[in-house]
Amino acid sequence: MVTRTVDLRSDTVTKPTEAMRAAMANAEVDDDVLSYDPSALRLETEMAKVTGKEAALFVPSGTMGNLVSVLVHCNIRGSEVILGNNCHIHIYENGGISTIGGVHPRTVKNNDDGTMDIDLIEAAIRDPRGEIVFPTTRLICLENTQANCGGRCLSVEYTDKVGELAKKHGLKLHIDGARIFNASIALGVPVHRLLQAADSASVCLSKGLGAPVGSVIVGSKSFIAKARILRKTLGGGMRQVGILCAAALVALHETVLKLEDDHKKTKMLAEGLNQIKGLRLNVAAVETNIIFFDVVEGAKITAEKLCKNLEQHGILVMQESPVRIRAVLHHQISESDVQYALSCFKQALTGRVQEENGN
Amino acid sequence: MVTRTVDLRSDTVTKPTEAMRAAMANAEVDDDVLSYDPSALRLETEMAKVTGKEAALFVPSGTMGNLVSVLVHCNIRGSEVILGNNCHIHIYENGGISTIGGVHPRTVKNNDDGTMDIDLIEAAIRDPRGEIVFPTTRLICLENTQANCGGRCLSVEYTDKVGELAKKHGLKLHIDGARIFNASIALGVPVHRLLQAADSASVCLSKGLGAPVGSVIVGSKSFIAKARILRKTLGGGMRQVGILCAAALVALHETVLKLEDDHKKTKMLAEGLNQIKGLRLNVAAVETNIIFFDVVEGAKITAEKLCKNLEQHGILVMQESPVRIRAVLHHQISESDVQYALSCFKQALTGRVQEENGN
Amino acid sequence: MVTRTVDLRSDTVTKPTEAMRAAMANAEVDDDVLSYDPSALRLETEMAKVTGKEAALFVPSGTMGNLVSVLVHCNIRGSEVILGNNCHIHIYENGGISTIGGVHPRTVKNNDDGTMDIDLIEAAIRDPRGEIVFPTTRLICLENTQANCGGRCLSVEYTDKVGELAKKHGLKLHIDGARIFNASIALGVPVHRLLQAADSASVCLSKGLGAPVGSVIVGSKSFIAKARILRKTLGGGMRQVGILCAAALVALHETVLKLEDDHKKTKMLAEGLNQIKGLRLNVAAVETNIIFFDVVEGAKITAEKLCKNLEQHGILVMQESPVRIRAVLHHQISESDVQYALSCFKQALTGRVQEENGN
Amino acid sequence: MVTRTVDLRSDTVTKPTEAMRAAMANAEVDDDVLSYDPSALRLETEMAKVTGKEAALFVPSGTMGNLVSVLVHCNIRGSEVILGNNCHIHIYENGGISTIGGVHPRTVKNNDDGTMDIDLIEAAIRDPRGEIVFPTTRLICLENTQANCGGRCLSVEYTDKVGELAKKHGLKLHIDGARIFNASIALGVPVHRLLQAADSASVCLSKGLGAPVGSVIVGSKSFIAKARILRKTLGGGMRQVGILCAAALVALHETVLKLEDDHKKTKMLAEGLNQIKGLRLNVAAVETNIIFFDVVEGAKITAEKLCKNLEQHGILVMQESPVRIRAVLHHQISESDVQYALSCFKQALTGRVQEENGN
Repeated sequence: MVTRTVDLRSDTVTKPTEAMRAAMANAEVDDDVLSYDPSALRLETEMAKVTGKEAALFVPSGTMGNLVSVLVHCNIRGSEVILGNNCHIHIYENGGISTIGGVHPRTVKNNDDGTMDIDLIEAAIRDPRGEIVFPTTRLICLENTQANCGGRCLSVEYTDKVGELAKKHGLKLHIDGARIFNASIALGVPVHRLLQAADSASVCLSKGLGAPVGSVIVGSKSFIAKARILRKTLGGGMRQVGILCAAALVALHETVLKLEDDHKKTKMLAEGLNQIKGLRLNVAAVETNIIFFDVVEGAKITAEKLCKNLEQHGILVMQESPVRIRAVLHHQISESDVQYALSCFKQALTGRVQEENGN
Repeated sequence: MVTRTVDLRSDTVTKPTEAMRAAMANAEVDDDVLSYDPSALRLETEMAKVTGKEAALFVPSGTMGNLVSVLVHCNIRGSEVILGNNCHIHIYENGGISTIGGVHPRTVKNNDDGTMDIDLIEAAIRDPRGEIVFPTTRLICLENTQANCGGRCLSVEYTDKVGELAKKHGLKLHIDGARIFNASIALGVPVHRLLQAADSASVCLSKGLGAPVGSVIVGSKSFIAKARILRKTLGGGMRQVGILCAAALVALHETVLKLEDDHKKTKMLAEGLNQIKGLRLNVAAVETNIIFFDVVEGAKITAEKLCKNLEQHGILVMQESPVRIRAVLHHQISESDVQYALSCFKQALTGRVQEENGN
Repeated sequence: MVTRTVDLRSDTVTKPTEAMRAAMANAEVDDDVLSYDPSALRLETEMAKVTGKEAALFVPSGTMGNLVSVLVHCNIRGSEVILGNNCHIHIYENGGISTIGGVHPRTVKNNDDGTMDIDLIEAAIRDPRGEIVFPTTRLICLENTQANCGGRCLSVEYTDKVGELAKKHGLKLHIDGARIFNASIALGVPVHRLLQAADSASVCLSKGLGAPVGSVIVGSKSFIAKARILRKTLGGGMRQVGILCAAALVALHETVLKLEDDHKKTKMLAEGLNQIKGLRLNVAAVETNIIFFDVVEGAKITAEKLCKNLEQHGILVMQESPVRIRAVLHHQISESDVQYALSCFKQALTGRVQEENGN
Repeated sequence: MVTRTVDLRSDTVTKPTEAMRAAMANAEVDDDVLSYDPSALRLETEMAKVTGKEAALFVPSGTMGNLVSVLVHCNIRGSEVILGNNCHIHIYENGGISTIGGVHPRTVKNNDDGTMDIDLIEAAIRDPRGEIVFPTTRLICLENTQANCGGRCLSVEYTDKVGELAKKHGLKLHIDGARIFNASIALGVPVHRLLQAADSASVCLSKGLGAPVGSVIVGSKSFIAKARILRKTLGGGMRQVGILCAAALVALHETVLKLEDDHKKTKMLAEGLNQIKGLRLNVAAVETNIIFFDVVEGAKITAEKLCKNLEQHGILVMQESPVRIRAVLHHQISESDVQYALSCFKQALTGRVQEENGN
């Protein structure tokens, strides 16, 4: 019987805090489709300010945030977007930009640190004016932090360079900033600076920030006006949505302060895992709240069995491949949870703890 | 200065009740994307039962409910749907089934009572097997109550006939049941019976039922499994969505009991409006909580000016056309609100009240 | 055994003339995708002149001509087109503008003469700037002659009025001029005048004009530049296409002179059919080369059996509905063919000829 | 003044032979949309036989052939196709499978020889049944010969392995066989054997085979039936198309015999270019009728200037990148043309010939 659960599958599994619950119970609301919901307006205004953009729009998920953003920038039939071959939009969003939006994706290899080589991006840009067999590149997408590269941060310098490239070619730049607050904390750079080169960004409130539901997209007033219509088209226009926005405002004010601690605990877990025989990871690459680690060949147990074994002790992680596992931390994982998790890992991989506890 | 507001624009403008707020503050939740949120599961289970279907899925809006449903039934390229020329999906959902889903709509004239003639539906059905220039009809959509026809109810007999026609031709039947509970109360027929012929239905919880956000779609297990993936694609998968579902459960248990009263108050308002010189409506056609009425030629004031005049007294209605206005009631409109609204209408159209109050 | 065939199914069934065959055998050609094919250029230049437009583009079919035109005008996601509920694009082109192009069709009732009421068109125009639930109307489509209304012609006056309406609302006007030369002959108005109000038009060369393959779309240089790319996307860019264009040029120069005769023979057939007991048609409505006629209730034979009976005598027609039949004439149907066809009709419906010829 | 032209841009630039022109002038034709055109039927029947498939369909271009094929296999919304990052469908067809068909492309790196590693293909296959964020892989595409990899041939062994992989995962395999006859000749393997593992293939008749226009797609009867409808939707249904098919039949019977010579002349040109200082290429990689070669750093002239210089002498080639140039041969390029081209290359890169001719 599981007596303790430490859920490291994702930072989306947080439960709303008491403060969030109170905020939802007392939220001032209105019909956000017919009029404007005051709590939604408050959140959107504040997010626009934090991100340094003119306007903002609440959406039910990061997936809708990215989908709406890409489709607004690529609103003309025959558009192509350049994005990382390992990014969330390409891998984990059902191919929606194509299957729903008819946008053609052109991928560039993501390096281990989440970047794409600038010259490879430039080589991928296409303009059919001189060549009638090409779609028209209209958008470049970055992701910061890059989840599938272990939560690595894109620097201001890199982002600005991509922004300059985009401008030079008349393209837009969208940043999937699902975890941009983690990048901001890790880099010590304000969110608005990290997003300065971007024409739009999506920011998630229900990952590390711990709000129950929702993301916000930000950009120019004209971008958000088009996004509002497209959100309605997709069915993301919600009525008294201020309920959710009120909780998100609490997340924005309170949980954000805990991200630095999340990163410390993540580092602690990474270092602990690194000392366990049979596991391999690059501690230096652990920059935020995500750890990718491999079960080495010759380990006592396979990745699959390790996950099952851990689950029996209440430790939940995500298996990414036959050898790779992902663990993600958030404000509801304590240092004690980390220690407990490490002891379970040790037990599973070395058997010693199990023997000690054994009957 | 407006001292009293009676918002008759739509039944979407309700505020969550104290019971809903308490439910949200205390909702048991989980990540509904990674696992299953217990409150969402509870709502979906209950809605499946109420509607007599195998399975259910919470979606952020009625628009997404219809979009997902139509797209699941028409998941093959080259699909055509037959639907009323005046129905919500065709008129008020951004043409999303085409612009997002690539489904070709074939409209049949909606009669005043919201029905389409059965023989016209049948004549519109097309099969390209013998004729390579036709798309393939795969779906018929009905709407009950039919909002744009003044909230008229479709009878069980009519719905069953359309269902038989659909079966005969191998088509699916989707019912946009945004206000199916209103139809159920008005007709004295249980919801599951009204939906018996349908392969799927969307039911709104944030209209007359007063939940802050959300609709539910229902159908077979296989339909809902496909709908769950498509909901994710569109960005409608939400994390701790149990917050919203907890409120919706209260709506389902409590507000539904007030719909009969809403209809009575609607009738009262309709009869009152009918006695005001300059307005014209068919009281017999007012079957649920929606009233359409016209400002007649030769009235003291145009529809546009009437709406503005009313707004100054806190009465909000929707202008539908140069002569037509819509008013919708819900559980937060009292008999006293109806009387106040009627007095404002009289004042605006006859000037008497204004003169009495005049200086 | 059939000894003589009179194919009245469509004017698409013509065989290339000797002059066309010679032109194809001797056509000067080049790769029209990489460079420009000289014969294609010649045809396109001439068609631009005849239609009074800046530029032209050869396409493999009328369906592609309309598809490309609608999609160029509606190149932004969320576009709506207003078109007749009985027009070719809506009924006979696989719903391609939606299923391939994601354009939302809004139909307006076609009157018997092929027109749509101007005020109904205007009422259907929508702009989502003030109302986020609407797609954006970007295009109106007319069809001249209107095939499904019996080849009726739209007058210059009507077309101009629709053009003014389009301009007033910032919309484009496309004319499906598959048989615009027939309209031009019947009305005594040059093609360019009939298309003056149009931003684009498609004109078919393989219907009454008798070319083996192809249509041409015409419009502004900018429209055609976009159309050229979209034609390539759809796979309509062809290599040494001058072969087909050479034949089309012959059609344009020679067959067009025979259209007036086609109309006379059509009238002759119509008048003959009208005198046959059991058939009903409106001779006055036969304006060009198409006849729709009904088999009346109480006739000796049903429409279906009539078609089969005629087929046994080599007369091919198209059954349009349980009671309606279509016959179309072209330059390879002679007066003698018309007389023979009439005798077969009489025989089938009255039995007299059969008895006379009887054994 | 150019006195001699040697067009090496592509094998699409051939002119129809006298035999083809005669065939077109005498072709037996009918309306291929309403009935079946006898010449089209003949070509389709023969192509089905040559490729070892049940059925075939003539289409106006290779682009339409691939588009129709991919869309028929991926006819369900939410489909993903795995294809080479350097293949024609992904790079040179306007992204049509996404922008027109809503299919999501997942690219795998093309090796220099045109293959993709089998294990990389397998790793890219996705099934959303267990994971709701994935599109569904439904198709793998190969290209033989692979144009963008210098016309390299895929072996029977490789193709069969990919076919087995596809079968194992319930996927379809489409082969873009635009130049499959070149592969067949180069490998000494019949076309039907090279396509044995494929569910469908497109074969071009207007490249090396020299027909003026057209490709043919082949597959099962059911595949072709669906393709016929989709071809109509896209506007690729043509009327008396037998004109083009008659020429294509000549190509299939006569020009195909010249491909072996084309390959010899290509080798001759490649070896000649390789001996010119300033050019670099891999002669061993020249397997069919395509040569890619680079202008090395430090050469007397840049690739761009080289192309312009050559153009002045009537030699047309394609610049592929700042350093890379493509030359393609076909039956209308003679050995003398190759020698002339080589002398122009030498002149441009070494200046010697120029000096000799110089004044």
